[in-house]
Amino acid sequence: MRSLLHMPFDPGSRFIRLMLAEKGLAARLVETPPWAAGSELAPHNPALTIPVLIDEPPTGGEIPISPSFAIADYLEEVYRDPALMPSTSAGRAEARRIGHWFESKFEKEVNRLIVRRRIDGRQQGRKWGEPEPVRDAADALAWHLDYISFLLERRLFLAGDRLSIADLAAAAHFSVNDYFGLIPWSDFPEARAWYQKMKSRPSMQPLLKEKLEGTPPAPHYADLDF
Amino acid sequence: MRSLLHMPFDPGSRFIRLMLAEKGLAARLVETPPWAAGSELAPHNPALTIPVLIDEPPTGGEIPISPSFAIADYLEEVYRDPALMPSTSAGRAEARRIGHWFESKFEKEVNRLIVRRRIDGRQQGRKWGEPEPVRDAADALAWHLDYISFLLERRLFLAGDRLSIADLAAAAHFSVNDYFGLIPWSDFPEARAWYQKMKSRPSMQPLLKEKLEGTPPAPHYADLDF
Repeated sequence: MRSLLHMPFDPGSRFIRLMLAEKGLAARLVETPPWAAGSELAPHNPALTIPVLIDEPPTGGEIPISPSFAIADYLEEVYRDPALMPSTSAGRAEARRIGHWFESKFEKEVNRLIVRRRIDGRQQGRKWGEPEPVRDAADALAWHLDYISFLLERRLFLAGDRLSIADLAAAAHFSVNDYFGLIPWSDFPEARAWYQKMKSRPSMQPLLKEKLEGTPPAPHYADLDF
Repeated sequence: MRSLLHMPFDPGSRFIRLMLAEKGLAARLVETPPWAAGSELAPHNPALTIPVLIDEPPTGGEIPISPSFAIADYLEEVYRDPALMPSTSAGRAEARRIGHWFESKFEKEVNRLIVRRRIDGRQQGRKWGEPEPVRDAADALAWHLDYISFLLERRLFLAGDRLSIADLAAAAHFSVNDYFGLIPWSDFPEARAWYQKMKSRPSMQPLLKEKLEGTPPAPHYADLDF
C-alpha cells in the first residue's frame, strides 16, 4: 500500500492528503517530523522535507516522490480520474499558479509568522518570551483573503468553475490557520462561502477531527456552518 | 510573439530562457525588476515575482504564466518536441524533484547568502558595511556540489540518462554563482564535467555573454574548457 510521510498540521502534507482523498486513493499515513534526528526521511527525500509520497503503482515497485508539487503532478498524471486540473493548458497554468501561491507565498508571508512556530517542534523560530507577531499575521492573512475574494467574485472555485488543486492547496493552508482561530472570516464573505463549501467535502473531514496536543482548536474549526 | 518578463541574472528566469532555447521557441525578453515601483509585473502576476511568460499560443490570445515551475510544466505540455521531461511518471517525478531542489532549496541555502545581494537591486538584504557570509556560502555550495556529484556518479544527466528540466534548472543556478567565481569546480570533477557539457550547449551561449554592470565575470565564466 502507498504511504505518505507527513505531519498532521503541515499545510503541504494536508494538501496531498486532500488530493489523495479526492482521487479515492488510500495511503498509510506515517508521522515523520522532519526536525527529528535519525528521521525516516533521508532515504526517501534527501531534501528532508515533508510530504513524501511513497507510491506503489500498479506496474510494481516503490516510487518516492517529493516535494508537494511534484506529488500533485504525479498523482494527476498517474491517477487521472477524477481530474483535479482544468482541461486546458491555460487553465492548468492558472491552477498551478494559485497552488504555488499557497505553497510558497502564503507559506512565507503567513504561516511563518505564527503557525509554523506552533506546529514545527513547538519551540522553533521564536525565542522564549518573545511575543508572537499577531498583528503582522492578521495583516498578511487579510491581504490573502482579499486576493482570493477578488478571484471568487469571478469564479466558483479558485482557478475556474471546477474544483482543482488550487482549492485543495488553499483549503489545506487555511485549515491550519483556522485551527488557531486566526482567520477573520466575517470580513470576507466570498472566501467564507468558498471555505464552507470546501469544509463540507468528505476529503476534509479527517483534517477537521485532528487535535494538536495541548492546544484545542478554535470553537468553529470543525463547524460546517461557521 | 511571446514575451518573458525576466532579469538577466535571476536564476529562475535563466532556467526558463534555457528551456525556451532548447525547445527552439523565440521570446521577446523584457527586463522587469520586481523591486521597481510601478513594475509592469502586477497585471501579469499579482505575486510580483519573475519570471513571467506571456505566451501567445497558436490558438490565439495571451496567456500569462508564473512561477517558473508552472512555466516549465506549461511549455512541456504545449510544445512537446523536444521533450525535456523523462518519458515515465517515475522519471518525471525525479526530474521535478531535482528541479524544485534548485528552485527552492538551492535558492534558500545558497543564492540568498551572496548572489541575491549582488543581483537584486544591488543593495538589498545586507546592511551597509556588513561582511558577506562567504564561508557559509562556500560550505553550502560544497554540500550541493557533493550531492549532484553523487547523482552524476550514477547517471549521465541529473535526473537520468537524458537532458531534462533538472539539468536546465541546475545549470541556471550554477551559472549565476559561477559568474561571481564562487564555485570550487576543481574539487568536484563529476559536477565539472557535467557543467562543461551544459556550458557547450547553444542554449547557454546567450547567458555566458551577459555582464552585470560594475562587476566583471570570473575569468573562466564563459570558458568552455575551464
